[in-house]
Amino acid sequence: MFGAIDHVGIAVENLDEAIDLYSDSFGMSVDHRETVIEMGVEAVLLSVGEAHIELLSPLGEDTPVGKFLAKKGRGLHHVAYRCDDVAASLERCRQGGLRLIDEQPRIGIRKSRVAFLHPASTGGVLTELVQPAESH
Amino acid sequence: MFGAIDHVGIAVENLDEAIDLYSDSFGMSVDHRETVIEMGVEAVLLSVGEAHIELLSPLGEDTPVGKFLAKKGRGLHHVAYRCDDVAASLERCRQGGLRLIDEQPRIGIRKSRVAFLHPASTGGVLTELVQPAESH
Repeated sequence: MFGAIDHVGIAVENLDEAIDLYSDSFGMSVDHRETVIEMGVEAVLLSVGEAHIELLSPLGEDTPVGKFLAKKGRGLHHVAYRCDDVAASLERCRQGGLRLIDEQPRIGIRKSRVAFLHPASTGGVLTELVQPAESH
Repeated sequence: MFGAIDHVGIAVENLDEAIDLYSDSFGMSVDHRETVIEMGVEAVLLSVGEAHIELLSPLGEDTPVGKFLAKKGRGLHHVAYRCDDVAASLERCRQGGLRLIDEQPRIGIRKSRVAFLHPASTGGVLTELVQPAESH
């Protein structure tokens, strides 16, 4: 169902410090930076092989990532898998009894189509399905 | 410095349930299963593209993953990056001022060479460097 790990999302308190860590210390290049209003984040994608690290800085305390930081602190936030057809993958998850956050795919970073599964039915792991824009 | 995301480690309370989720619901195949005494875990690797999901079930409460589960609950545990030369990558991290858990690489799952960086200097993310056995 999934072609690859698309990215790993990381909640950060200080975006510039986090970019320094991943670019200077780990040698990853910044591939994209975008404020995704609907998700309440400023996000930065850094390349590692065919995948990315997605740094997530909340736009406010009352956003999902802002609440995550207040509750759990900075660190690993979600894992995202690449799909050829996010709607079909989401439907398969629904039919498999998984709890969905998104009933339908929506637009995510870089105009990808995304849908999140609820961590309650995925072993505590916030899980994202991603269909890159170029395969729409 | 890193060629790819090698795997994402996930702490689980019930290994069989977690395998069912990743294999049945997500369609990943179980690639490897190993009890790694030195790390205090029973671990299962499932394939997703060129990467893996690594399910980690603690061998006891007094192991690192056992303590993690007690403190933070099940879910995302660490991210691991593939290196051609884990000793060189670890040395670069040391020289960059990062705090190390392992001063020298040690043997991990499938006879890989691994070293962990301390989350205190990596934005709260437990970070592993991995050199697969075939490139020793």
